[in-house]
Amino acid sequence: MSDLVTFGEAMLRLSPPRGRRLSRTDRLDVAVGGAESNVAAAAAALGTDTMWLSALPRSPLGERVVHALRGEGVDPEVVRTDEGRVGTYYFEHGSAPRDPTVVYDRAGTPIRSLEPTELPQSVVRTAETFLASGITPALSDQAAETTETLLAVAAEAGVTTAFDVNYRSKLWSEREAERTLAGLLEHVDVLFVAERDGRRVFGIEGDAEDIARQLAGAYGFEQVVVTRGEAGALAVDDGAVHEQAAFETDTVDPVGSGDALVGGYLARRLAGEDVPDALAWGVATAALKRTTEGDMASVPAEAVRSLVSSEDGGGIDR
Amino acid sequence: MSDLVTFGEAMLRLSPPRGRRLSRTDRLDVAVGGAESNVAAAAAALGTDTMWLSALPRSPLGERVVHALRGEGVDPEVVRTDEGRVGTYYFEHGSAPRDPTVVYDRAGTPIRSLEPTELPQSVVRTAETFLASGITPALSDQAAETTETLLAVAAEAGVTTAFDVNYRSKLWSEREAERTLAGLLEHVDVLFVAERDGRRVFGIEGDAEDIARQLAGAYGFEQVVVTRGEAGALAVDDGAVHEQAAFETDTVDPVGSGDALVGGYLARRLAGEDVPDALAWGVATAALKRTTEGDMASVPAEAVRSLVSSEDGGGIDR
Amino acid sequence: MSDLVTFGEAMLRLSPPRGRRLSRTDRLDVAVGGAESNVAAAAAALGTDTMWLSALPRSPLGERVVHALRGEGVDPEVVRTDEGRVGTYYFEHGSAPRDPTVVYDRAGTPIRSLEPTELPQSVVRTAETFLASGITPALSDQAAETTETLLAVAAEAGVTTAFDVNYRSKLWSEREAERTLAGLLEHVDVLFVAERDGRRVFGIEGDAEDIARQLAGAYGFEQVVVTRGEAGALAVDDGAVHEQAAFETDTVDPVGSGDALVGGYLARRLAGEDVPDALAWGVATAALKRTTEGDMASVPAEAVRSLVSSEDGGGIDR
Amino acid sequence: MSDLVTFGEAMLRLSPPRGRRLSRTDRLDVAVGGAESNVAAAAAALGTDTMWLSALPRSPLGERVVHALRGEGVDPEVVRTDEGRVGTYYFEHGSAPRDPTVVYDRAGTPIRSLEPTELPQSVVRTAETFLASGITPALSDQAAETTETLLAVAAEAGVTTAFDVNYRSKLWSEREAERTLAGLLEHVDVLFVAERDGRRVFGIEGDAEDIARQLAGAYGFEQVVVTRGEAGALAVDDGAVHEQAAFETDTVDPVGSGDALVGGYLARRLAGEDVPDALAWGVATAALKRTTEGDMASVPAEAVRSLVSSEDGGGIDR
Amino acid sequence: MSDLVTFGEAMLRLSPPRGRRLSRTDRLDVAVGGAESNVAAAAAALGTDTMWLSALPRSPLGERVVHALRGEGVDPEVVRTDEGRVGTYYFEHGSAPRDPTVVYDRAGTPIRSLEPTELPQSVVRTAETFLASGITPALSDQAAETTETLLAVAAEAGVTTAFDVNYRSKLWSEREAERTLAGLLEHVDVLFVAERDGRRVFGIEGDAEDIARQLAGAYGFEQVVVTRGEAGALAVDDGAVHEQAAFETDTVDPVGSGDALVGGYLARRLAGEDVPDALAWGVATAALKRTTEGDMASVPAEAVRSLVSSEDGGGIDR
Amino acid sequence: MSDLVTFGEAMLRLSPPRGRRLSRTDRLDVAVGGAESNVAAAAAALGTDTMWLSALPRSPLGERVVHALRGEGVDPEVVRTDEGRVGTYYFEHGSAPRDPTVVYDRAGTPIRSLEPTELPQSVVRTAETFLASGITPALSDQAAETTETLLAVAAEAGVTTAFDVNYRSKLWSEREAERTLAGLLEHVDVLFVAERDGRRVFGIEGDAEDIARQLAGAYGFEQVVVTRGEAGALAVDDGAVHEQAAFETDTVDPVGSGDALVGGYLARRLAGEDVPDALAWGVATAALKRTTEGDMASVPAEAVRSLVSSEDGGGIDR
Repeated sequence: MSDLVTFGEAMLRLSPPRGRRLSRTDRLDVAVGGAESNVAAAAAALGTDTMWLSALPRSPLGERVVHALRGEGVDPEVVRTDEGRVGTYYFEHGSAPRDPTVVYDRAGTPIRSLEPTELPQSVVRTAETFLASGITPALSDQAAETTETLLAVAAEAGVTTAFDVNYRSKLWSEREAERTLAGLLEHVDVLFVAERDGRRVFGIEGDAEDIARQLAGAYGFEQVVVTRGEAGALAVDDGAVHEQAAFETDTVDPVGSGDALVGGYLARRLAGEDVPDALAWGVATAALKRTTEGDMASVPAEAVRSLVSSEDGGGIDR
Repeated sequence: MSDLVTFGEAMLRLSPPRGRRLSRTDRLDVAVGGAESNVAAAAAALGTDTMWLSALPRSPLGERVVHALRGEGVDPEVVRTDEGRVGTYYFEHGSAPRDPTVVYDRAGTPIRSLEPTELPQSVVRTAETFLASGITPALSDQAAETTETLLAVAAEAGVTTAFDVNYRSKLWSEREAERTLAGLLEHVDVLFVAERDGRRVFGIEGDAEDIARQLAGAYGFEQVVVTRGEAGALAVDDGAVHEQAAFETDTVDPVGSGDALVGGYLARRLAGEDVPDALAWGVATAALKRTTEGDMASVPAEAVRSLVSSEDGGGIDR
Repeated sequence: MSDLVTFGEAMLRLSPPRGRRLSRTDRLDVAVGGAESNVAAAAAALGTDTMWLSALPRSPLGERVVHALRGEGVDPEVVRTDEGRVGTYYFEHGSAPRDPTVVYDRAGTPIRSLEPTELPQSVVRTAETFLASGITPALSDQAAETTETLLAVAAEAGVTTAFDVNYRSKLWSEREAERTLAGLLEHVDVLFVAERDGRRVFGIEGDAEDIARQLAGAYGFEQVVVTRGEAGALAVDDGAVHEQAAFETDTVDPVGSGDALVGGYLARRLAGEDVPDALAWGVATAALKRTTEGDMASVPAEAVRSLVSSEDGGGIDR
Repeated sequence: MSDLVTFGEAMLRLSPPRGRRLSRTDRLDVAVGGAESNVAAAAAALGTDTMWLSALPRSPLGERVVHALRGEGVDPEVVRTDEGRVGTYYFEHGSAPRDPTVVYDRAGTPIRSLEPTELPQSVVRTAETFLASGITPALSDQAAETTETLLAVAAEAGVTTAFDVNYRSKLWSEREAERTLAGLLEHVDVLFVAERDGRRVFGIEGDAEDIARQLAGAYGFEQVVVTRGEAGALAVDDGAVHEQAAFETDTVDPVGSGDALVGGYLARRLAGEDVPDALAWGVATAALKRTTEGDMASVPAEAVRSLVSSEDGGGIDR
Repeated sequence: MSDLVTFGEAMLRLSPPRGRRLSRTDRLDVAVGGAESNVAAAAAALGTDTMWLSALPRSPLGERVVHALRGEGVDPEVVRTDEGRVGTYYFEHGSAPRDPTVVYDRAGTPIRSLEPTELPQSVVRTAETFLASGITPALSDQAAETTETLLAVAAEAGVTTAFDVNYRSKLWSEREAERTLAGLLEHVDVLFVAERDGRRVFGIEGDAEDIARQLAGAYGFEQVVVTRGEAGALAVDDGAVHEQAAFETDTVDPVGSGDALVGGYLARRLAGEDVPDALAWGVATAALKRTTEGDMASVPAEAVRSLVSSEDGGGIDR
Repeated sequence: MSDLVTFGEAMLRLSPPRGRRLSRTDRLDVAVGGAESNVAAAAAALGTDTMWLSALPRSPLGERVVHALRGEGVDPEVVRTDEGRVGTYYFEHGSAPRDPTVVYDRAGTPIRSLEPTELPQSVVRTAETFLASGITPALSDQAAETTETLLAVAAEAGVTTAFDVNYRSKLWSEREAERTLAGLLEHVDVLFVAERDGRRVFGIEGDAEDIARQLAGAYGFEQVVVTRGEAGALAVDDGAVHEQAAFETDTVDPVGSGDALVGGYLARRLAGEDVPDALAWGVATAALKRTTEGDMASVPAEAVRSLVSSEDGGGIDR
């Protein structure tokens, strides 16, 4: 019985030292990352009782993933399979004008063929909040169906359902995404969406607020949080608009900062805080994530609180 | 126009520091390995003009593999594909009573769907020796067919064909191997086979010499080299038997030592040496390979020569 | 409600690369170790639901310790204090004739002043087995009193109590140990004691069996397990004697192998296995621990099972 | 008979790689730091004959500290004790908006109970300049007493006495500092004080010059050097004011730059240079220190000279 | 028969981790660098069939250099000598106001005594383009003579000859350079020269265009490319002037970026592209080189193409 | 005024990680080594007041060497030159049957042209013991002359002169060595010579005792110490023979163990101990050196004392 349950895939993240290229490196740092497990780790670091629901093969590499999540204080509820592989992704740090390079190597993972009945649905039903993202339905038709079933199960049980659009152009087209997500979003209470995804997936023109209002109108979301990168984030909550400027950062590693935002937001909402507070914590958690290596935000609550209340930080715009 | 052409798949080899477990490591050393590319590297280090024929996806990881082979002085002739992934394998050093751990992650590689016509067959036809191994036909039916075609093309062009049985129980059963290899071996002049594979794949009872003689009899090989691990190797050459004792080693990394043997043997044969000399060089190259990290034997000719002629080494048994 | 609860202190373990000296090193590897947390980690790796009860200061270093235990699948139930420091110990690998060097730096840790009422005693009362060791009572009078109280609480609640003598000459004298332990051992059901400690702490002459029998007679233990290093281990269980030979190992790091034995033994007993089986698993877990860096045995059950049933291993002597 | 003698404590400095957190790291770089030993190292690098007076336990860790100071060309005159531990501090590099984290672990060090008679006071009496700082008296009453005694001994012998206020809020309150330092400062000729400490410890309002003038007036210092971080430094020398702008730096590691300033200043004064020259060298040494990892400025004289005389640097403002 | 042949010396490059000083480091990263081999590597990465002509001693260090070049896809045609050593250079990363430090250790290398007849001149005669630089003639009189001979041989055979002035003040004076180069430049078709070298070696006043025009006039070059660092590059081609602005970079390592420019330019010219295109590619290759560690630009063609055509990049100024 | 003064050259020692080859490595560990500085370091670690006399270029690399010696507690008295380079040597760890590889790169070092008048001969005259070795005279005629002059100066001043033959076949022939050393040895009181060098340089047949006796007879040495590798060492002292068996070691790095023997021996003799004691300490210091990486024995006196007096060690054979 965890307060927050997230469902999705985690991968090994393999990256050469800064300034070295994947095509030449003879050393790789190993970490673990995945949108939904990153959200879980960020929320757990802030004190939320969190579970991550997934599938992994029985192997030392599957064990490596479980080890990482456990270390972050997340309870991994993992279906172990005899077939399939652990997804990996290779990350080469960028330096202008060279962009960071990501090589996904995530074919053949067990979550693609996972059926809803293989999962312990009771952990979803007894959560306070259940989160999924648009990455999982992009992996396979079965994964889309399982995601939708879990969202429906959660919604039916009165669990708050949250969804991060997280469009990945390497996994599916914008049209496929829009079509598939339409069905899932009916079960969703809280939506997280990048401003860019609002435009390219849902075809909404206008600014972040337009995106939030139109999506809230179309699907009846309780809240829509639009993330805007360098420009912070904006939430529409029952018609009211809240904005949060970003905190200036000296970025060490940008990967996972969006997930940190979601984790920080949900952690505060689960702690009973209002939307502006959650938005500020989400954006601050994302800023702190950017200052450390790796996908997961191991950011203690005191650090976030201190940043949120700092004068020279972004401050809360209500 | 290389003297030796080998055909097969190479993978990224990822291994944690000695004494660390895959399930816990946060660092991996990167190297490149694959039976046929290992043979190529060993032969090139000994001065043979060598080409490696393969397929790899267009990606920094495919480039990483090419970089490694080039560095060893092998000319990589690689079909670049838009689909498929670079195979990887994870290697955890063992320490008694804990065995080394190998986790293969080689599904979905482009060599599995490679058709003979996609390859520049002229490089096979113009070689002095062409080598394939029993790993490639185990990867897929198409790979088996392509392997057979290349062996047939080589044989027809008067190229010496060599084949290393290299049975992998994780890829296919002994029965599948026997059935598939039977067809391929018709085109082969020189066979390399581990004593254990002689028993389990070909069902031959008796000692190494029996295996060599029976296989030579069944398929008409010019030479059969039976590798015996700690016991060295034995060759039957046109009826004559040659034995070579192993050299005592303080093993740093055993992976690839069989391939080093094949590479050392072929390099000497291509240089015009007789079978006992080639056998001694092969076993010595394997011994030196064991003293360094990684699959590939970067062993210069002087080091092998020095070991072969050392008094306290294995010496040549004729 | 964990099946196994262990109580004690864990420290940061800082060690230079092999072959480097503490007095010269500019790099240290960080791990976490402590007798009772090592037992917890070994049992958790074998599938036991395990909790570790302790005290740590609120700091990134305290968090580092918690992170390590969580990563091993142990549930850390930790009293966080504003005062005190995280214990550390420095470990320099040895190479004959140079012994390994251990520099303890464990003064001023919060467990020394921890009172029983600060701890959630319910987690002790609801366990299947509760384990403490002779290290904690050696740290301070208060720590001795708290250890005794927890053992008494457990015993009273019908929980099986286990105790590992673990005499540390740097912490107290043999006479102090004997006097203090005498009181604690009245509450203990299962005793683990090194053969050498049987002699120097309890003044028992004779062999391992004599030690086990005399201690069992004196305190009424249900089982006494005497560990004998290279000679394996021996258990007296209700009058019956069971011996288990050691498995030959190529030792990478000996630290924590005794704790691995205790963890392996308890894991099997909690799984309902008999004493000889538990003894074999304990000795095998210790052997596998020796092949990896660090105090904690991250040894999966399959590896232990495979070693216990191997022909060339120690085998079970019943 | 060294020209400069400094007295104080040095610690092991343990820091994770940049971008990693103390709460997660599995690697630490080892260096040695301490205000007064940092001053000694900076002065020695510039060619001053320098001794560092301290106490350390007999252990490989104490030896590690001595090794580091010796390597910098400082002569360590160290009282070896059987009791006590080597202080350590953990340093996590920051990245905006995450500040650097320092975890001090310096309780129980031998300098706290060191009595003046245990020290070879003759080395103080025969020095040209003796330096202490406000950190040592903050460690314990005994340490305060010993510091005062050494300053008095030096003053009495006609040695120039220098003192760096170095207020540490984690060690004592501003009121305790002010009260204790008042007694010590009577023996001091040259004072170094951060602008901020001038305000919070001595309660002086106004700018850097006010602080310098008021302190010079109150205690009769020959010189007062006020360090102003990004704003450089200012010295009042017998009524005359000298200012030195800071040099712009791309900071790699800020720790120890204040000590480098003191070391650079004293080295030049001991070489017979005037106050403006010494101030320029001090500020330049601090700037160069910031560009390297670790507390100690291994900055050769040529590099400082070159920076001081550069056109695009800060230049000397007289 | 390579399209591009470059002639010169390559060295081992040894550099401490960023933020560490050569005078203190206990670790060095090993790479390989040299102006002409850097050009070869950059061109090879862009798909040009490239050979590097040089001399190296027979040793593991000579082999290390060959290994690096081969890995980059360059064909090393190396005269192996029994005498002489492999040149090395030590590189310490800078951080303002501390400049990068380069310690050359290149005395006694075999290229200094290499006679033209020892080299396979046929590979020069059959190339499309032959490149030398002003570093080699600075090494010794013999090296100057050999360089001139090769240029003459190439010119006579109708090969396009290219020359990079690359003045090194540590190797010779400006006057020696001018005098020696005058003879060589008579054989040259395409000249590369840094704006600063145009002034100090050839004594030309005025801007980059003046330098290009005057040198073209004096020697009859087909093209002159003047490199201007932060200001990009300019080419005079048969009277027409082409400018290329630099791309803004977050520089990781500046060494070798000039060589990357030459390599990029020549690769495109050999591919049949016009001068403005080649100039853009050269400047872009240099920019990307700056973002990675090491002398050699392992920059794939797609990355350069993408940068050249980017809107926010430098763009092509025609 | 140091008790022991040694004269000779030290080099940077660069070595790849164990199991990696020089021809492939991309990382090198940096240490400092040289026969006479190794002797100095070993003696200093045992408490002897020691100076090392040498010449080095003014450069960060020269500074690196000085830093290392200082760190070991040796006082480096170094003539800084504007010309010449720092010698380096590359060391690749061996693993049977692959021998360790040493690539010397020591040409052009300043000690080769150092004249006696450039050195502060007073430090030699005021020493208790002065040590040189047969490596320095092998470097150049001038170095041989300077070595002889220093030995003569010392002898004349009544300083005990010690000499370690240390024949290096890569530097000179046996005949050259014999001829040159003959002159030098006239000034020597204590000779150290490897058994093998006794045979090949001095042409003495027979066993270690024969070598010692014949050399003592020929040159009138006070003591001759013959080192015998695995067989320990033997000393002839004024006609009496003392033998010391070697201590069994698990060797990590053999380089420098002979120098450690000399350092240990001299340290004890300078402390007033007799020859058998010094011999035992020398052999024990060598054994402990073998267990750590690097040329220099950082072996504290307690460790040597403990080994010398251990029962299971070699023990003293008198």
